[in-house]
Amino acid sequence: MKIIRLNLKERSYPIYIEDGSISKCGCILKKLNIGKDAVIITNHKLKKILAGKVKKSLVKHNLSYKFYTVPDSEKAKSFQSCLNLIDKISKYDNRKQIFLIALGGGVIGDLTGFVASIYKRGTPYIQIPTTLLAQIDSAIGGKTAIDLPAAKNLVGAFHQPKTVIVDPKILKTLPKRQLTSGLSEVIKYAVIKDKALFSFLNKNHKKILSLNKSAIELIERKCITIKSKIVEEDEQEKKGIRTILNFGHTVGHALESAGGYKRYNHGEAIGLGMVCASEIAFNLKLLSRENLNKIINTIKLFRLPHKIKGINLSKIIPSLIKDKKFIRAKNRFVLPTVIGKVKVIKDIPEVVIRKAILKHILPN
Amino acid sequence: MKIIRLNLKERSYPIYIEDGSISKCGCILKKLNIGKDAVIITNHKLKKILAGKVKKSLVKHNLSYKFYTVPDSEKAKSFQSCLNLIDKISKYDNRKQIFLIALGGGVIGDLTGFVASIYKRGTPYIQIPTTLLAQIDSAIGGKTAIDLPAAKNLVGAFHQPKTVIVDPKILKTLPKRQLTSGLSEVIKYAVIKDKALFSFLNKNHKKILSLNKSAIELIERKCITIKSKIVEEDEQEKKGIRTILNFGHTVGHALESAGGYKRYNHGEAIGLGMVCASEIAFNLKLLSRENLNKIINTIKLFRLPHKIKGINLSKIIPSLIKDKKFIRAKNRFVLPTVIGKVKVIKDIPEVVIRKAILKHILPN
Repeated sequence: MKIIRLNLKERSYPIYIEDGSISKCGCILKKLNIGKDAVIITNHKLKKILAGKVKKSLVKHNLSYKFYTVPDSEKAKSFQSCLNLIDKISKYDNRKQIFLIALGGGVIGDLTGFVASIYKRGTPYIQIPTTLLAQIDSAIGGKTAIDLPAAKNLVGAFHQPKTVIVDPKILKTLPKRQLTSGLSEVIKYAVIKDKALFSFLNKNHKKILSLNKSAIELIERKCITIKSKIVEEDEQEKKGIRTILNFGHTVGHALESAGGYKRYNHGEAIGLGMVCASEIAFNLKLLSRENLNKIINTIKLFRLPHKIKGINLSKIIPSLIKDKKFIRAKNRFVLPTVIGKVKVIKDIPEVVIRKAILKHILPN
Repeated sequence: MKIIRLNLKERSYPIYIEDGSISKCGCILKKLNIGKDAVIITNHKLKKILAGKVKKSLVKHNLSYKFYTVPDSEKAKSFQSCLNLIDKISKYDNRKQIFLIALGGGVIGDLTGFVASIYKRGTPYIQIPTTLLAQIDSAIGGKTAIDLPAAKNLVGAFHQPKTVIVDPKILKTLPKRQLTSGLSEVIKYAVIKDKALFSFLNKNHKKILSLNKSAIELIERKCITIKSKIVEEDEQEKKGIRTILNFGHTVGHALESAGGYKRYNHGEAIGLGMVCASEIAFNLKLLSRENLNKIINTIKLFRLPHKIKGINLSKIIPSLIKDKKFIRAKNRFVLPTVIGKVKVIKDIPEVVIRKAILKHILPN
């Protein structure tokens, strides 16, 4: 099994990547020795597909388990959801040997990680991410959060999992739109850090879209390695290094919010955000026209939207200003300079931002 | 001004101890440079007495402020309380330069620290503790928590403050019962770590009870130094070192809970817990009769209850078993061996525990 180690001193952990690794979760957990009673947080759909394999492996290694399901939507990331889960967990926690398993995508990972971070001032948990986006990004690095009425991810913690089990085979059960959404973050990694990955994506887009085993495993390994290294250097996003992972996220988040979290899913919004950020970089003469086109073409190649539809600039700009990535009310963008390199640029004139976004809005 | 430094690498911070230090909070905060907009969490009573001094000092150093009050009781440590505070804080957080100030006792410190730990995945906060117990214990070391219906302190985080400002003069405004409650934790420090402090307490109990300035400053310095060292060695209570601070807390928490958190306040319950733990130590031949009597006499000297009234053993034992200090459903006690030294002992036969507690229950 391919193992990538994320090194954070006493918070280090292995990330396992292999087709079918979910069926080995009991063995991995037994070795980790983080507890005897597993609380598995998932949703109904995933429970139907995956519970059997997980149960079998846990029982084989003498671990008890309890499944708790949450709604299959961002709604699961609420304070109330946390409260309900903690209440249930505390009732199951008789032997005081409990640990949590996040079996799901980004929403379940964020929620489970946050509950683990606050239950008894920190309880062990592991991630079994079930979407491409979670496998290569959100499940790795310990960022956890829930939403409040005032804003998404307003409340959270940095709490590293004890391991991440990545089973690329699970992706076969995903709806196509969720797969392409994840590919958007793959493109992000390529643009910010890995020119070779960018070429690979362009040459192998058909294989990737049809979930060719070796192509998927390669991009997962590459992305997880990049993410791990960045997290190792700047675990709590205090040094400005982890910031580069936000390429495409500034405009992306504004689009998600302005679209009421319905029009675009996360990956689609980030794809559009990358288009806009690249356009800003081009306008500021930081990026060549050739590279701008390459980025936009790659986004098109993976069937991600590259033009904003049905949202006006007048709705996007206020959402942009509210974003927590705008520090001290000044803007801050991650902008590509060549394929594989980005710069963090602050205080970009609003007119430049408006012009760049406007260029990529389709007329009504 | 006396400064004790708590060393935890990048989470290190100074603890200021001086009569009147609260009036210097603005100056201290300006130097810390942790933000420009202070959110002060306190209760109505304290706001009346202390807000003037705090405001004046903050304004002098160009810091904006906002007061939010919470109920003056354990009720303030609820999930709902957290939610309300975060909602208000996010509305005030326009410049994204916010930090929190806990102006109060243990409840306000725990709540504020927890809100700070989860708001935007960690926001700076400082402690201005207003009770003896908070000044020497709960405000130091970054343990934060809130209560859930299922249990007290069930949810929390380790989140260190950026500084602690201890103003012994504030204690003069305290009700007597709250002062003696804090003295219970002073006795705890003496028994677990400092024979000289134990002698000082016995020789100077009158001065201490009348809040003699130099006597109070001395015991505060001693206790804060002990607490800081223990936290430095075992920040997250993972090495079993911080555990010794739980001397008296196992039976103490059970008494608080069995008494519905009304009969005994925290310090009083801990005092009784220390009596019972010392009795267990004596019965296990770990502690001499002479030292047992010395401990009980010191508790009496400070007008703390030394006999359990109105709670039956049949109510205490179930609360004891539920306590989260009992790991893996086995018991664990911090027991004194001489004055100034303790041992952590596991798996004490229930009959020994029952006998020791029973000896100190007054017949109805």
